[in-house]
Amino acid sequence: MHTVPLRKVTIVAEGLLEDRLLRDLREHGVRGFTISEVRGEGSRGVRASEWEGRNVRIETIVSPEVADAVLHHVAGHYFEHFAVIAWVEEVKVVRGDKYA
Amino acid sequence: MHTVPLRKVTIVAEGLLEDRLLRDLREHGVRGFTISEVRGEGSRGVRASEWEGRNVRIETIVSPEVADAVLHHVAGHYFEHFAVIAWVEEVKVVRGDKYA
Amino acid sequence: MHTVPLRKVTIVAEGLLEDRLLRDLREHGVRGFTISEVRGEGSRGVRASEWEGRNVRIETIVSPEVADAVLHHVAGHYFEHFAVIAWVEEVKVVRGDKYA
Repeated sequence: MHTVPLRKVTIVAEGLLEDRLLRDLREHGVRGFTISEVRGEGSRGVRASEWEGRNVRIETIVSPEVADAVLHHVAGHYFEHFAVIAWVEEVKVVRGDKYA
Repeated sequence: MHTVPLRKVTIVAEGLLEDRLLRDLREHGVRGFTISEVRGEGSRGVRASEWEGRNVRIETIVSPEVADAVLHHVAGHYFEHFAVIAWVEEVKVVRGDKYA
Repeated sequence: MHTVPLRKVTIVAEGLLEDRLLRDLREHGVRGFTISEVRGEGSRGVRASEWEGRNVRIETIVSPEVADAVLHHVAGHYFEHFAVIAWVEEVKVVRGDKYA
C-alpha cells in the first residue's frame, strides 16, 4: 500500500481552550482533526492539582511544515499560562494529498 | 526490556461504520483492538460539514503485513464514499507474539 | 521549532486497574499522564470474551529509561493475570525538560 509520511500533532489541553485551539489550527491551514475527551494530570506550567479534570486531546495530521508552525504557535501562546502539552510523531497515511 | 517493532493502525470513521470495520479487521486476522469515541472534522472524501458528529477511532497493533493489508482494504472499500481516514505508525510492544 | 525526542508509553488495561497503574507510574517518577475511556477486545493473557467492556488507556511521555522501567514493571506485574497491553513510541516534544 502506498503511504505518505506526514506528522501527527497531538495537543492535550484544558477543555476550556478547545474552541481557541481549533481556531488556531484552522488559521494554520489545518482542515481535519479528531477531538477526544480525556482526563489528565501533569506538570506543564501549572501545579498538578490545577490540571486535573476535563481535558481535550486534539489530533491532526499535517505536513512537517505545518506541524512545526502549529507547535511553535502553541508553545508561544499557551505554554506559559495554560496546562497544555503538545507532541509530534511521524505517521504514514494513505492519500497524503488530502492533508494540509 | 525486550520489545518487538510492530505497526499500530488507526482508523477514524463515522460511528455507523464501526461494526463493519471490526468485522473487516477480524477477517484480516486481527485479534485485538481498542475503540474510543471521538469527535472530528475533516476533508476526507466528504465536505467537512458532513463529517462532524460522532466518530469512532479503532486502533490495532499488528504485523507490517497485516497493517498493509488492512490499509489497502480500508482505502479500497471506504475512502470513496465514507468519511474515513487511516494511518499507520511504528510501535514497540512487549511480547510481540501475541499480535496478528 | 526545537523539539526533544522522548517516549510515549501507552497502557490499555481493565478499568479496575487504573488506580493501581497510576500509583505504579508515580512510583517510577512519572509526573504527568492522560487517561481516556476506551472499549476493547483482545487476546492478551485472557480469552477475548473476558476483555470486552470498560478499559482505560493511560498515556505518559517520559525518557527512554523511564519508558523501559515502566514497561518492565507492567509486563512483570500484570501480563500474566490481567488483560493489559503496553507499547512505546518515539515522540518529539517541546520543552523536554518538563518530563520524567
